[in-house]
Amino acid sequence: MSKVILSKQFSLLKIMRPQEIIAKKRDGETLSQAEIHSFIEGVTDAAWADYQISALLMAMFMGGLSLEEQNFLTEAMLASGDKLDFSDVDAPLADKHSTGGVGDKTSLIIAPLAAACGVFVPMISGRGLGHTGGTLDKLESIEGYNVNLSTEEFKRIVKKCGFAMTGQTAEIAPADRKIYSLRDATATVESIPLIVASIMSKKLAEGLDALVLDVKTGSGAFMQDFEKSKQLAEALCKTGNACGVKTEAVISDMNQPLGKYVGNALEVFECVKILRGEADAQMLSTLELSIELTARMLVLTGIEKTVQSSKFKVQSVLDSGAALEKFRQNIELQNGDSKICDNPEILFDKDLVKVDVKAEKSGFVSEIDAAVIGECVSKIGGGRNKVEDAIDFAVGYQCEKTIGDEIRRGDALGILYCRRENRPDSIREKLARAYKIRPQRNSNESRLIKEIIGS
Amino acid sequence: MSKVILSKQFSLLKIMRPQEIIAKKRDGETLSQAEIHSFIEGVTDAAWADYQISALLMAMFMGGLSLEEQNFLTEAMLASGDKLDFSDVDAPLADKHSTGGVGDKTSLIIAPLAAACGVFVPMISGRGLGHTGGTLDKLESIEGYNVNLSTEEFKRIVKKCGFAMTGQTAEIAPADRKIYSLRDATATVESIPLIVASIMSKKLAEGLDALVLDVKTGSGAFMQDFEKSKQLAEALCKTGNACGVKTEAVISDMNQPLGKYVGNALEVFECVKILRGEADAQMLSTLELSIELTARMLVLTGIEKTVQSSKFKVQSVLDSGAALEKFRQNIELQNGDSKICDNPEILFDKDLVKVDVKAEKSGFVSEIDAAVIGECVSKIGGGRNKVEDAIDFAVGYQCEKTIGDEIRRGDALGILYCRRENRPDSIREKLARAYKIRPQRNSNESRLIKEIIGS
Repeated sequence: MSKVILSKQFSLLKIMRPQEIIAKKRDGETLSQAEIHSFIEGVTDAAWADYQISALLMAMFMGGLSLEEQNFLTEAMLASGDKLDFSDVDAPLADKHSTGGVGDKTSLIIAPLAAACGVFVPMISGRGLGHTGGTLDKLESIEGYNVNLSTEEFKRIVKKCGFAMTGQTAEIAPADRKIYSLRDATATVESIPLIVASIMSKKLAEGLDALVLDVKTGSGAFMQDFEKSKQLAEALCKTGNACGVKTEAVISDMNQPLGKYVGNALEVFECVKILRGEADAQMLSTLELSIELTARMLVLTGIEKTVQSSKFKVQSVLDSGAALEKFRQNIELQNGDSKICDNPEILFDKDLVKVDVKAEKSGFVSEIDAAVIGECVSKIGGGRNKVEDAIDFAVGYQCEKTIGDEIRRGDALGILYCRRENRPDSIREKLARAYKIRPQRNSNESRLIKEIIGS
Repeated sequence: MSKVILSKQFSLLKIMRPQEIIAKKRDGETLSQAEIHSFIEGVTDAAWADYQISALLMAMFMGGLSLEEQNFLTEAMLASGDKLDFSDVDAPLADKHSTGGVGDKTSLIIAPLAAACGVFVPMISGRGLGHTGGTLDKLESIEGYNVNLSTEEFKRIVKKCGFAMTGQTAEIAPADRKIYSLRDATATVESIPLIVASIMSKKLAEGLDALVLDVKTGSGAFMQDFEKSKQLAEALCKTGNACGVKTEAVISDMNQPLGKYVGNALEVFECVKILRGEADAQMLSTLELSIELTARMLVLTGIEKTVQSSKFKVQSVLDSGAALEKFRQNIELQNGDSKICDNPEILFDKDLVKVDVKAEKSGFVSEIDAAVIGECVSKIGGGRNKVEDAIDFAVGYQCEKTIGDEIRRGDALGILYCRRENRPDSIREKLARAYKIRPQRNSNESRLIKEIIGS
């Protein structure tokens, strides 16, 4: 790990009083690079009190940040911690980051696909909170799989099989950890520049050449509104590229769960089925998005020239089983039970109760409240409301119908996998109400890939 | 003391999450009475973390508060503590509050004047900070004078001699104490609604019928800009009157020190001289402002019908020596040495060094930076920069010239009373530079009383 040098540059200037920096932003002025670094150093070494940090965060939220300030903030947060050093690796490094959704399991497919195509993927992931899942939780539903790698283990595994997946260590962007917990408690979460700095400071610490962002939009996304999602995507790309990482964003639909399953072990099952080339119709959206995102990683890193040729390449490592082998190799290196690659059915817990969620009338599925489906799975133990909550990896939901499907009263919209003590009746009702059924099919069917925000 | 009842009314609603209240103000919405009370209860019982309080303070600073919100905030802060109960007293209760200035010593004259006219004055005062002095510090330069009265002693002395002067107890508006310290550290001081709530919650706790505000404007004032001072005066009056206290504000000039002396014991000397009817020309501004403010207290409490008749009455208790006797009686009741009433010269410390501050050129005094004079006196020990600093009561400055005076090079602009170790030379230079001398007299001489903001 190499301490980022920027932080040193400004340490002489730390005499700046927090009040003066706060007052400047409060009055609508633009903060200098030195002022932003002074702030982030104060966050990191606790020279700024929590109440001073939160006052500035609110002033930033309400007053906004210029693109330059956003870049300075990202760099300063990156500089607050360590950056992975892959200078001894002779392969392009890339990653994918998603803003989070329901049933969004593409990381487990993209990492082996990209690795099989020659890109190294040092993926530092998070846990689920609220209605959205997290990659670490999904991985932990694989028996024995270790997501708490040391930096050395992490790098060793990346070099060995082309990718590794771990949680954020205390050394990566510590200022972000502090700021994020304060934002959550002070209603300063939904600010594009603060979101950009939080996401990008962590991703830039991976030492990447390229980054593909999956910005979700719709009922199950953090940013439900398309225009806001687009603004976020543009802001993320601008800062990524300004900081020397080739960055592209795909705005993808989150108006219904992605793919077939929602729930940790069930989502791993879906990923293995896809990597085995056994995707069924309900899994195709997961496959389509995974190929799109991986293909763009290959183009950004220069491995392929066009997205089209890139997609052929990705399809070929899927068809050949090379990607599945990468996944198997990774599971073994991270101490997981790789038998799931041969026999994914072992991921289903036989003790679960299966409850059909039935359509209350005939017609066409016109809307699905994806957030409600995520919340229901979370409520039966599949997710967490507080960071410290334990998770039941086995429970979840199987989607049987998607937007546009014609249905008859009594048809199964989906199947809930839960425990007897989860009181399935009320959850089943809530799930059924998440579907809007109308007599006519929607005129404008929503596409999965809504827009590409270029580099 | 009677716990204010409002606080109970809303205690059932304390389930409101801080984040939701913060988000509402952040988004420019208006907070309800219940939300504001929930906030202040959270401040008082520490259910809100400091970083949540400061985030909302910044949102209030940047987003502003409606008059109704400002009134709710004031009431809630008042309700966070106790309110003095003078229901057993058969006299009108009134007080004066100043936003603070340099040489501003009128409290020590107004309280005995008003008491001699039949108004009871339960004056809870503060200490000096930065370039402005504080009434408690001035009083403590009287040997033995006790400014730490219990509530019972305070009420007993008010009833006995018509006025008492003490510091704020922990029971008065505790939420203000907490909020004020956070505002100071988070650059959220200069917000009119927050200033109004801070001042008025404490003054309303005195259980007054009437309140006269002395809002200073100019180089030595907290609000230097006249329009801002006027906005503050109007806001204070609106909230005072809305909360059932007849309130009026006098906007007075603070473009030069008030009266002759700056410095604690020296200011007490000036007050005694005035109460003894021995004011010299340099003291007349102190006298004029004291009479104006006291006269308005008499009118607001209904003791006199017009400001003019009221001024005659005030002049009569001054001329008769009745006000001086009230002051003597108060000093004795608060354990001070009342000999200063007969022999004010004992307030001068014989060990002080007297240093003339001389004019560097001839002309007319056109501007005086009153804040600089306050800072110089503070610097030689007469004030404090931090709350915990000790004070040298004896040191100070005697003003010899005011704006508009014609002077010759070498004339004394003033006299510094300091210690030999204060290095008077650099202070003397700084003081001389606080005066702007021009060849012509200013065309528009500034008046002491600039505007009256009505009730």
